[in-house]
Amino acid sequence: MSGKDQGNQVPVKAMEDLWNVWYSELHNHNHGLTVKIDRLLESDESEFQRIEVISNPFFGKMLCLYGSLMCADNDNNAYNEMITHVPLLAHPDPKEVLIIGGGDCGALTEVLKHPNVNRCTMCELDSKVVEVSKKHFPDLTSGLKDKRANLMFADGKDFIENSSEKFDIIILDLSDPVGPAADLFQKPFHQAVHDRLNDGGILVAQAESPFLNKEAIKAMHANLVDIFPIVKIYTCFMPIYPSGYWAFLFASKSPEPVNDKIVSRFERINIKTRYYNPETHVAAFALPQFVKEIIA
Amino acid sequence: MSGKDQGNQVPVKAMEDLWNVWYSELHNHNHGLTVKIDRLLESDESEFQRIEVISNPFFGKMLCLYGSLMCADNDNNAYNEMITHVPLLAHPDPKEVLIIGGGDCGALTEVLKHPNVNRCTMCELDSKVVEVSKKHFPDLTSGLKDKRANLMFADGKDFIENSSEKFDIIILDLSDPVGPAADLFQKPFHQAVHDRLNDGGILVAQAESPFLNKEAIKAMHANLVDIFPIVKIYTCFMPIYPSGYWAFLFASKSPEPVNDKIVSRFERINIKTRYYNPETHVAAFALPQFVKEIIA
Repeated sequence: MSGKDQGNQVPVKAMEDLWNVWYSELHNHNHGLTVKIDRLLESDESEFQRIEVISNPFFGKMLCLYGSLMCADNDNNAYNEMITHVPLLAHPDPKEVLIIGGGDCGALTEVLKHPNVNRCTMCELDSKVVEVSKKHFPDLTSGLKDKRANLMFADGKDFIENSSEKFDIIILDLSDPVGPAADLFQKPFHQAVHDRLNDGGILVAQAESPFLNKEAIKAMHANLVDIFPIVKIYTCFMPIYPSGYWAFLFASKSPEPVNDKIVSRFERINIKTRYYNPETHVAAFALPQFVKEIIA
Repeated sequence: MSGKDQGNQVPVKAMEDLWNVWYSELHNHNHGLTVKIDRLLESDESEFQRIEVISNPFFGKMLCLYGSLMCADNDNNAYNEMITHVPLLAHPDPKEVLIIGGGDCGALTEVLKHPNVNRCTMCELDSKVVEVSKKHFPDLTSGLKDKRANLMFADGKDFIENSSEKFDIIILDLSDPVGPAADLFQKPFHQAVHDRLNDGGILVAQAESPFLNKEAIKAMHANLVDIFPIVKIYTCFMPIYPSGYWAFLFASKSPEPVNDKIVSRFERINIKTRYYNPETHVAAFALPQFVKEIIA
């Protein structure tokens, strides 16, 4: 078809195929998830990182920070549900919750579905991530409208080291250990977090892929077992994260991660989830052999 | 660098980067796993399908049939362990096992790790897949050396419909429902498989990704609940399969998939696994909310 004909005859919709642009998040430069970019909705940078929002025909809008996919409209929300409901339902009565990181606000929104929470403080380094998330992910950020949401923009390390506040649950919803969050995967920070927890408090941290980041999990686990009496790994399936399989570390001053109150507590909060349910909560702590061997 | 200099100065090893070739297995042409191809080891076709073996720096050798990745040296073997050990340990005493498909022989090899099995018949359509797998995947195909392995090359549908043999366990280790195996995802075939099972027999079938292939799972589940008194879905994490998350259907004439004998039976067979263990066996039947809703 000649250039002249094309202008008159090809409907704009059919030109989608001409915009053949792909985003690939690669591990060790040799494999990873690739997604077709329908539209590049944001491509910006903050003081700390690049921030992109792309749209894909299957996943819808996707947030990409520091070159890593963080969330998507059409995933199953496993990460946000599992990093929040597991500690909040393991704890007998969480009133004060702190999230370090979590700029897309997905964890904050899940935490505030618990009516017994009095306040959820979120300490995020990068205000631009929250701004972009509010614009593109209204469901994920809906918790910001809740008056119990206490948002602050600060370095999580400074906040933990300088604050005297105490929390029932602290969630480390950090980006990967190679970016601006690197220090927050180290033992001094884990010790400082421990000291900001009330008696019976629980720390949960995202802990990378058990398939790809064995050394990172091993190191974090080793830090935490020196500090907390109860430390467990749990996992979930998360299709947009590297390998599709993700780990969390659960470190507790006393509550066990699995107990016979989970079902009644979940019924009491009466929320709709896409991934979490009490059976999945229990099953998440049953580790495949290759994951057990990481910490053997 | 000029062409002349290049020949003298660039070590062959450093030329790896010049061979920049990628394989991408896409879902709906808009997202999927992409892997760098170090070497294209086989690129052939049989009467039924294309057969490729590629090598990747992280995964090692990978078998690709009909454009879909089937297995890799460095995955966690979850698929082969979960499609075999779950039914074999749910059954009180499996003697006769039939695998339909499974040309890479990974399932056969796992089945024959059970000393109580008298014979494992494998009915594969495509002899070339077995031939290529023997050449490139010696560990995966090591079960072929066992004298209890009974290999035949035939259409699984013909074999099931014309045989009068009966089995304790039948495993449908098929390629995707769009390829040569399409008929083997239909109800008449599932009924015929039921009729080839002994009393107390178990059928297990690979059932695609719960994230991407909800309709396929729903249809297979609907077929099987009309035929078997016990039908359950279970899942595993499988990094090289679409979405990284995979489903199986467990259909049984009487044994429940989870029972209090699993631990002692697993201890008795005394094998080393990479994914399966009795806790994972139990946990695999705890379904995330979005998977439950497929069959709600």
